[in-house]
This record gives sequence, structure tokens and C-alpha cells, in this order.
Amino acid sequence: MTLTLTPLPDLPLIRPGDNLADILLTGLAAANLTLVDEDILILTQKIVSKAEGRLVNLKDVIPGQAAVELAERSSKDPRLAELILRESRKVLRVRSGTIIVEHRLGFICASAGIDHSNVKGEGGKPEDWVLLLPEDPDRSAAEIRAKLEAKTGTHLGVLIIDSHGRPWRLGTVGVAIGLSGVPGIVDERGWEDLFGYHLKITLVGAADELAAAASLVIGQAAEGTPIVRARGFPYPLRESSLTEIIRPEEQDLFR
Amino acid sequence: MTLTLTPLPDLPLIRPGDNLADILLTGLAAANLTLVDEDILILTQKIVSKAEGRLVNLKDVIPGQAAVELAERSSKDPRLAELILRESRKVLRVRSGTIIVEHRLGFICASAGIDHSNVKGEGGKPEDWVLLLPEDPDRSAAEIRAKLEAKTGTHLGVLIIDSHGRPWRLGTVGVAIGLSGVPGIVDERGWEDLFGYHLKITLVGAADELAAAASLVIGQAAEGTPIVRARGFPYPLRESSLTEIIRPEEQDLFR
Repeated sequence: MTLTLTPLPDLPLIRPGDNLADILLTGLAAANLTLVDEDILILTQKIVSKAEGRLVNLKDVIPGQAAVELAERSSKDPRLAELILRESRKVLRVRSGTIIVEHRLGFICASAGIDHSNVKGEGGKPEDWVLLLPEDPDRSAAEIRAKLEAKTGTHLGVLIIDSHGRPWRLGTVGVAIGLSGVPGIVDERGWEDLFGYHLKITLVGAADELAAAASLVIGQAAEGTPIVRARGFPYPLRESSLTEIIRPEEQDLFR
Repeated sequence: MTLTLTPLPDLPLIRPGDNLADILLTGLAAANLTLVDEDILILTQKIVSKAEGRLVNLKDVIPGQAAVELAERSSKDPRLAELILRESRKVLRVRSGTIIVEHRLGFICASAGIDHSNVKGEGGKPEDWVLLLPEDPDRSAAEIRAKLEAKTGTHLGVLIIDSHGRPWRLGTVGVAIGLSGVPGIVDERGWEDLFGYHLKITLVGAADELAAAASLVIGQAAEGTPIVRARGFPYPLRESSLTEIIRPEEQDLFR
């Protein structure tokens, strides 16, 4: 089956309190795009965070001692380091310019996913504003999905994505950080093995593969196209959550 | 721009010596699919390896001492361990059932990418056959692309992909292991930074995002659809190679 990823053009800049489901439906209508059962809407964390008012002005942040030390080791603003610590369970690596943490949501990423790129809040110097990730991206995805399904009468999936760097390979790739109705991991059957020659189950990172596909269409710079409609996702939709995708620490050989 | 990923249905099983460009063009024609400038053809490593005769029968492999030791530590067949060592620069982690290596091609993956799932060679028990990665996937991609471009008069890209597991997150995702005409990494401009507020360059793993998208369409089990046509890749095609994507060891915090 063909998979089609269509960005929604010409969306307005998102502000705190905005109803993303309404904005999305307006954007779809303006672009003459329909929704049918099993379509998946993919949204960048940035617009979800903005709509949820996750902007923080650094002048309101008082760094503690741990943040001051982390800022020194990483050459980052102590107030940003404070926010990174608040949003994290654990600091994994620190280098000049780089702080890799286990986010409170469970995944591992740089700077706790805090976006300090071209974020504009209300008042203050633009460079003082940063954007935290949504408080609970699974919940955000579920809320947007519920509104969309209620208004359209279709059965949909919603994915909230971010771009993460990775070990071993250069370049960021899109990953899922909030899921509603989209399977995080899909079991596929293959053939094990030299001796046993018995059935082997491969776990496919289906939500992350879709996130990567959508991220490719969205790009990094494009403020104007932070939503993508995916049609033709090859697996049945079902309830799921981010925890499906997080590798438990004791199964991780590279922390 | 809309990105469309269309699998080629009903391809024949690939055998050593097969001309993949011809098979691909026949498959496209049978499915009434065209090729236009800037289309990208994505092929799984498995069919490329098969066409290149990279099948090895384990009964022809004599494990050395290092392989015997590695097999013991990993509970794997010593002959498979021998092949993994031959295909690798370095062994990074070993657990029962798992060998993570730096492949001779530069990327990090399990079992040196050697496929022992449902590979059938000519003669011998099916479980004795394994499939090595293509000798030089960039070259394989370039050769397929040259044939396709010569026969169609279009300007194309070709990507050879595999599915890799990852640290931190469960599930395999498609990644590029051979590139011709497709940029591995794309620079995108965003805004740095709390103090400087100067231009920041984000490196996007564009080829890997496309590989993930294609992998989603292909699935793991589907012997029948190992080729995908991508239309609407949002970046200009240009010459590139796998080395663009490999993170240099000294820049890697997680080896």
C-alpha cells in the first residue's frame, strides 16, 4: 500500500491557548485535504508545546547549585541548565555545548528537548524565551485525537514528534514522543536462526519510522508546516503509549 | 510537497546474478508506475546482497580461535561468529544472543548485518545459508542508478537500506547503508541560542529519514516488496556516500 505524507500549508503561528484540533481542521479544509479512517495526524512538539503554554522566560528561572555546576561543565546558561535538570531524571553525558539526559518522560535526548531556537514569547527579549516539551505528550495526542474524531466521525491516530540526535550516526531524525491510536512497536514474524529455524519475532519501531517520514516532510526550519497528514500507514491502529518505545535501562547496552 | 512511498508489488525472488535495474523497471511497468526526475528508488540490502551472490554456506566456514571465543560469549554458532568478525572492524558489546560490532563499512549494528533469516541458497540445508551485506553498498547503489538513468533518461537517486536496532529505544528502524544521488545529511538553518542569537545549523539525517519511511512500507516479512519508489523527497538530489552519515568515533559519546 502506498504511504502518503502531506504537509498542511499556511498554518498560523500558534499561541498559548490555541485549539490545535480546530486549527488543524481549518488547515485541512483550506488545503482541500480530507480525513478518512486510519489517517494519522503528525504534529511537531513545538506547536503542541506552544499551544499548551510551555514557554518559560529565563529571567524567571533561578539556577540552583547543581545547575550552576552543570552550566560550567557544558558552557550553557545556568538558567537553561536549571530547566534541563528539572525536566530530567538523570544526566548521562556532558561536554562543552552538549548535555544528554534521560528526560522525565523516559527517552534520552539532548538538553531535555528544550527548544531555544527562535522561540518568541510575549514580552522580554526573544532570546530569553525557551520552550519545554509538552507536560504529557501522550495526553496531548489523545486530547487532539478525541477532538478530531468527535468533529469528523473518523477513526484517527495522532503522533507528536521531535527531532533527536543519535549515537553512531550523524544527523537528527524524527521520533515519536506522544502517541494516541498509533502502535509504537509492531511485531513482525521472520525466521530465526541457524539451528532452531524457528519463528522469530522482529520488533519494528513503526511509530518512529512514521515520525522520521513526517519529519522529512516538515523539515527543521519550516514554521509554516508543523502538521502532516499520513495516509496508508501499513499497520492497524490501536491504543498505545510512549512507554512502548522506551528501551528499559537494564536492556540497554549503550547508556 | 507531498512525499509518496509506493512499494513495487509482485517482484520475483532474486537470485545471484540477477540484474536488479531490469527487474525494477519490469516491476514498475507491471504496476503502471512511472519514473520522473528526482524520484528515489529504495532497495533492501537483502535483494542487493542476493543479486550480488553474497550468500555463504556455513559448512564452508572454519572458525578461528577468536570466533570460537566470541561464539561462546554470545551463544552463537562459531561459524557465524567467524563471518561476523571478518565483516567487522571492532566488537563493541557481547551478550548472550547479541553481538554489536562496528561494521567494516563504518556503521554500528548487530551481527555485522548478516542475515540468517529465511535465506535460501542453492543446495544444502536452508538453515546453513547466511547472507552478508553487499561488499560496497554505495557502489551497488551507483551501479543500479547508472543503469536506471541510462534506460529511462531520468535523473534519479538510489538508496540501499537495512533495519537496525538502536540504543535507548525499542524497535528496529530503516537506515541507509548505500547511497547514490541522495544526500546523506542536509544542513538546515535554525536560530541558535540564548546569548549569541546567531544562526545555527541543524544537521538533518535526511537519507535515514527516507530509509525509515521506506522501511515502514516494506515491512520485515515482505519478501515480495523489497523495492519502494519515493516521490517528493524535499531536498535537491546530489552526489553523496555512506561516510557522510557515520559519526566519527571521537565525536561519539556512546560507543
